[in-house]
Amino acid sequence: MQYITINHNLLNQFIFKVFRNLGFNETESQNAARVLVTSDLRGIESHGCARLHGYIRLVDAGKIKPNAEPFIEREKFSVATLNADGGLGLHMGSKAMDIAIEKAEQYGSGWVSVKNSSHFGVAVGHIEKALEKGMIGFSLTNASPLVAPAGGRERLLGTNPICIGFPAQKNPPFILDMATTVVANGKLEVAKRKGDQIPTGYAQDFEGATTTDPGILAQGGSMIPLGSDLQHSNYKGYGLGAMVDILTGVLSGANFGPWVPPFVPFLNQTEEKVGEGIGHFVGVWNIEGFMETDEFKRRMDQWINRFKTSQPAKGIDRVMVAGQKEHELSLDRKANGIPIYKVVWDNLKTIDERFNIGIIND
Amino acid sequence: MQYITINHNLLNQFIFKVFRNLGFNETESQNAARVLVTSDLRGIESHGCARLHGYIRLVDAGKIKPNAEPFIEREKFSVATLNADGGLGLHMGSKAMDIAIEKAEQYGSGWVSVKNSSHFGVAVGHIEKALEKGMIGFSLTNASPLVAPAGGRERLLGTNPICIGFPAQKNPPFILDMATTVVANGKLEVAKRKGDQIPTGYAQDFEGATTTDPGILAQGGSMIPLGSDLQHSNYKGYGLGAMVDILTGVLSGANFGPWVPPFVPFLNQTEEKVGEGIGHFVGVWNIEGFMETDEFKRRMDQWINRFKTSQPAKGIDRVMVAGQKEHELSLDRKANGIPIYKVVWDNLKTIDERFNIGIIND
Repeated sequence: MQYITINHNLLNQFIFKVFRNLGFNETESQNAARVLVTSDLRGIESHGCARLHGYIRLVDAGKIKPNAEPFIEREKFSVATLNADGGLGLHMGSKAMDIAIEKAEQYGSGWVSVKNSSHFGVAVGHIEKALEKGMIGFSLTNASPLVAPAGGRERLLGTNPICIGFPAQKNPPFILDMATTVVANGKLEVAKRKGDQIPTGYAQDFEGATTTDPGILAQGGSMIPLGSDLQHSNYKGYGLGAMVDILTGVLSGANFGPWVPPFVPFLNQTEEKVGEGIGHFVGVWNIEGFMETDEFKRRMDQWINRFKTSQPAKGIDRVMVAGQKEHELSLDRKANGIPIYKVVWDNLKTIDERFNIGIIND
Repeated sequence: MQYITINHNLLNQFIFKVFRNLGFNETESQNAARVLVTSDLRGIESHGCARLHGYIRLVDAGKIKPNAEPFIEREKFSVATLNADGGLGLHMGSKAMDIAIEKAEQYGSGWVSVKNSSHFGVAVGHIEKALEKGMIGFSLTNASPLVAPAGGRERLLGTNPICIGFPAQKNPPFILDMATTVVANGKLEVAKRKGDQIPTGYAQDFEGATTTDPGILAQGGSMIPLGSDLQHSNYKGYGLGAMVDILTGVLSGANFGPWVPPFVPFLNQTEEKVGEGIGHFVGVWNIEGFMETDEFKRRMDQWINRFKTSQPAKGIDRVMVAGQKEHELSLDRKANGIPIYKVVWDNLKTIDERFNIGIIND
């Protein structure tokens, strides 16, 4: 596919200006730009600037509120529930993380469940601050229902990601950021755009039979939890997705399961509600409460080096550790720019024209 | 296979007496019996009384110390590191959970990493106390290396389970307790005993190619992380197993990765050490710090009921939620006894004879 390359700082500036133009304040717009660009830098294009028009659409529809005033609804030393006041998930995740870090500094760990929020963006976008402080960062979000439970056929869960990051000394941090499905929805979208089939075990039709049709979601199909089928334990992926839904949705007072409000265009909001908005859950462990942080980082290096240098399977180049590929890509993209597919670029250009920004052009 | 049925209280009494005879104190022996019987009641036979001789062998070899004196090495309000003093993992998990519950009562959450411990038993055996208190329980352990990283061929990780439990009101708790591999090692052992093949995607040979041979571990093979292959994202199962290893092993000061001391008979302890013993990690979130516990439990019922009554895929009987099958089985086994395979029964009989207990006989 054809693409145009853009410097990441310029892309950040563009997104920042879009959010400012939409009425968001400076901090909200900074966080939004940072989280979206982080995603593009790390090669998670499905959650980067390609989604910008999705956020705009939700703001235009009055479903995301600029200048929201989040407040703590309930609290007990190391834990709290934050009401996001209907604001921007891209910002609220980071706001919650700030609170969790403060708690971890004081009490050894900090946990914030967030309700009444909106789309979170890429989960890794919210743990970086914890890693910079030399702490362990954790973030989860629920999302609009696209996934059937193992053995089921109804869309009851989002692709509900789990993200955890551990700082190391000489190595970049270990960062696991994974959808609890076999693949993220973005893989289906890319295959559909290219006219490709998808492997079995990624998605299923409305009766629950696996399919190779990447357009199946628009026909009542659903995504499959990690594991792919019952014999290969997709009840585990289902269980993890459920865990995420419970910590983010049930525990915070947000919507959960099939009641989570949609981001994707082919789903309508359910009339019935079981809570407020979308839910997130972020946390921080302060390593100092367990062991000297320097010793931990040294041990992490030992762990990472042992795994990175282990023998690959026949036909495989090298064994990697979580976040390594994304880190390498991000260094490359910081140096050489972020490639933006033509179709996304054109979309950004329309947005640029709407707000008269003058960064995205021919 | 032929089996003998035993009442769970009687089995508990037998195991308790075995540990007492091995020199463990009353609390250690109670916890050991409770955790092993919990596993048999829930149908996880691989981690129940079938493993009793494994523990005995480790005690006989001086690798598990009776009457150990665990102590807190480091602490910061909601978090701590417990040194298990070379004692019994079956007990230390519950000891750590007691500390985590106390912290959660006081600070909203509690997290205890454990080093210098031994085999943990089934992870769910250590979260029950949190659930009884109306809290969210979490437990992890690392284990002897049987699993290759995604794309690798060396055994670097254990089957490293993740367990989390959420209390509900009318429903039994949601309990996810899963190995981070496609299947637990026990499935291979059962297939081998029966002379069956295993499906592809469970295990691989020494070159990293998947196999249907259940005896492959004894030939330098390894187990495969959840996901089964690269196309179906087994780097996610690998990432989760790694997360468990880091929280339990790296963070506590225990051994980690390939250095974790073995439980299974076909592995030798490595000469090199990177820490002390096996590592665990347990945690508790106090729901009261986020939301009224009663409201949470009511919302959990709503969550569970929605999923349990959702439409099954074609050919499937019903959709279940995590822990449901095990709960149902455990009610049945409490009423009708626990079936013990003849080969395991004979093994228990030998143990009974050694200590003159008089519970397991013909």
